[in-house]
Amino acid sequence: MRLALAIGDAGGVGPELAAKLLTHQDMRDRDVIVLGDARLLGLGARHGGLDLDLPTVAAADLPDRLPAGKVMVDLGNCPPGDLTLGRSSQGAGAASLQNFAAALRLAQAGVADAAMFTPFNKHSMRLARPAYVDEIGFIDATLGADRSGREFNVLDEVWNARVTSHIPLREVAASLSAERILSSIRLTVTVMEGAGKPAPRIGVAALNPHAGDGRNFGEEDEDIIAPAIEAARAEGLDVAGPIPSDTVFVRATRGEFDAVLTMYHDQGQIAMKLMGFDRGVTLIAGYGFPIVTPAHGTAYDIAGRGKADLGATLAAARLGLALARLNPGRSGTGHLADNWATDPVR
Amino acid sequence: MRLALAIGDAGGVGPELAAKLLTHQDMRDRDVIVLGDARLLGLGARHGGLDLDLPTVAAADLPDRLPAGKVMVDLGNCPPGDLTLGRSSQGAGAASLQNFAAALRLAQAGVADAAMFTPFNKHSMRLARPAYVDEIGFIDATLGADRSGREFNVLDEVWNARVTSHIPLREVAASLSAERILSSIRLTVTVMEGAGKPAPRIGVAALNPHAGDGRNFGEEDEDIIAPAIEAARAEGLDVAGPIPSDTVFVRATRGEFDAVLTMYHDQGQIAMKLMGFDRGVTLIAGYGFPIVTPAHGTAYDIAGRGKADLGATLAAARLGLALARLNPGRSGTGHLADNWATDPVR
Repeated sequence: MRLALAIGDAGGVGPELAAKLLTHQDMRDRDVIVLGDARLLGLGARHGGLDLDLPTVAAADLPDRLPAGKVMVDLGNCPPGDLTLGRSSQGAGAASLQNFAAALRLAQAGVADAAMFTPFNKHSMRLARPAYVDEIGFIDATLGADRSGREFNVLDEVWNARVTSHIPLREVAASLSAERILSSIRLTVTVMEGAGKPAPRIGVAALNPHAGDGRNFGEEDEDIIAPAIEAARAEGLDVAGPIPSDTVFVRATRGEFDAVLTMYHDQGQIAMKLMGFDRGVTLIAGYGFPIVTPAHGTAYDIAGRGKADLGATLAAARLGLALARLNPGRSGTGHLADNWATDPVR
Repeated sequence: MRLALAIGDAGGVGPELAAKLLTHQDMRDRDVIVLGDARLLGLGARHGGLDLDLPTVAAADLPDRLPAGKVMVDLGNCPPGDLTLGRSSQGAGAASLQNFAAALRLAQAGVADAAMFTPFNKHSMRLARPAYVDEIGFIDATLGADRSGREFNVLDEVWNARVTSHIPLREVAASLSAERILSSIRLTVTVMEGAGKPAPRIGVAALNPHAGDGRNFGEEDEDIIAPAIEAARAEGLDVAGPIPSDTVFVRATRGEFDAVLTMYHDQGQIAMKLMGFDRGVTLIAGYGFPIVTPAHGTAYDIAGRGKADLGATLAAARLGLALARLNPGRSGTGHLADNWATDPVR
C-alpha cells in the first residue's frame, strides 16, 4: 500500500505535520510519495526538531523508476523565503493546489493506493484560484470525475456521513430522495466495512424537528427517509431511524450506533465539532481510492513552533492505508501524463 | 413573588419532583400555588420519602382569600388508582392540561408572577387532546394570546434562543427576515437582563454551511442575518455573527458568548442536548410572565422510585422567580373567572 501525501498550506502546520508523520514509528515500513517543495518539508522537520532526509525522485521517473519506502517528488513550488508563517498567501495556496492535484493523479493512476493532505487554507487557495469552492469540486475537476464523492467525518468510534453537504439550507429538503439516501447508506456500509468495521450499525437522522412529530412539522421523515431505511433493512443492513437529530448523536456517543447519516452539513458538523472533531479525520470516498486529511485546520497561531499535535494526522494516514487495502490500485492504469505533477487544474 | 406550579404527567416523575421542590430548603420562604390532584402530590412525596402536608384552598377562594406560603388547589382530577406508573395515559394527559391551564390563568391574572410545570408527556396529552401540538400553541389558546411566545433553553452559563421552532426544515429559510431576527435578539437581551445577566453577549448562528461561504452556499447569511446583527449593534447590543453554526456553540462553551441565537430548532437542540441539556431549563417568554420547566422528560423508567434528580427543576424554579421580579403581576387584573381552574381549553 502506498500513500500519496500532499504537503498542505505552508503558512500553517502542514509541513511540520508531514515531517512528523514521515518520521513516526507507526509509518516505519510504509511506502509514501510526498508531493511538494522539498525545502518546506525540511523547514517542517526543523520546526518539529526532527532528522528527516528523504530521497528525491523526479516526476518523470514515475511510475517506472519508483523505489520502495518514502520518497519526495520535489515540485520546488513554494520558496520558503516568500513565506510568512501564520498567514494565508497566494503562493501557499497555489502550491497546495498543485500538491493536491499531483497526489490525486498518482492515486487515480494506481501508482498510489490512497491520497492524503495535511491542512489546507481555503483563503490561500482562493487567492490562487478564485473559483475554488471545496475539496470535492476540485477533485472532480482534477480527475475529470462525472460524479462527486462523499465526505465522511470520523471521530474516535463515531462516523458521520451526510446526504447533502455544501448547498444552501433552503435547498436541502428538495435535494433529498429515498434513492439518494439509500445510496448514502450503502456507500457508508461499504466504506466502513473496508475500514474494518463489519456490519456497521447506522442511525439515520431525521430532517425535521422531532422527526416531523407525526407530520406536524414536515412530511419528509415519513415520506422519504423512512422508505429509504426500510429498503436498506430489506437488504440486511443494520439501519435505524429516522431519529430526531438532537438525540441521534447522544445515542451514538453512548455506543448505540457506529455511524450517523445526516441529511445536511451542519446537522452533523454541529455535533461532531462539539464532540471534539478537531481530533478527528475527514475522509472523501467515492473515487476508487480513499482521500484523507486531519479534520483540523492550518492552526496559523502555532505555525513554526513545533507544537502541532500529530494525532489526527496519524489517524488519517492509518485510515487511508486501511481503506486502500479494499481496492489496491484497481482504479488505475499505471499510466501518468508527462506533466502529471505540474499541470494546473482547469 | 409567587409561583404557580402545575403538576406534570402523573405516570412519570412529575409528582415526585413537585414534592421534592416544595420541601427543598431553597424554596423555604417562597410562595407557591400548586395546581393538580392532591392525592398525586402525596404519592410523589411518598415516592421521595418526604414529609409534605400542604394546606388546601378551594379554587373559589382565589384570588381574595389566598394565604401566604405554599398552598394546594386540589383539582381532584387524577385518581391514583386509575394510574399505571411508567406509562402515558389519557387520564394523566387530561390532568396535565388542566393543571397547566390553571397555572397559566393564575399568572395571567397576576395572582401568580410566574408559571411552572414538572415534566409533561406529549403522548398522554394527545390522548386527551389530539390537536395538541406543543406548549406554545396551548398557551396561546389558553390565554387568548395573539402572538406566540418564544422558547429559551438555558444550560449552565449558556442560553439558546431560536428564531423559528416547530416548523418543517424546508420552511425555515423563507420564514426568516431581518426584522424577525432583530426582534429575537431584542427579546433575548430583555429576558436575560431580567434574569440578572446584564448586557449579554450574543452569538448569532448562520443559516447556511460555513455561513454561506461568501454566497457560495446561500445568500441569507449576508442578505438577512448580517443586516439584523448590524441593526442590533447600532442599538448598542453586544451581538456577533453570523457565525457558522458548527462553531458558535464551541465558542459559547469556551465563554465567548452568554447566548446563542439559532435560526431553527435542531441547530440549537443538537448542540444543547450533546452539552447535557437534560440538566437544563426551558423558559417560554413573551406573555408578560415567565413560564419555566425542567428540560428533561417524564423519565418513565424511574417513575415512583424516588430517584428523580431535582437539579433541573430547582434551576427552573429559581429562573422563573428571578424573571418574575422583572414584571411582578403587571400583566394581570387580579380577576379570575369562576371556572378558572376547571374550564377546558377550546
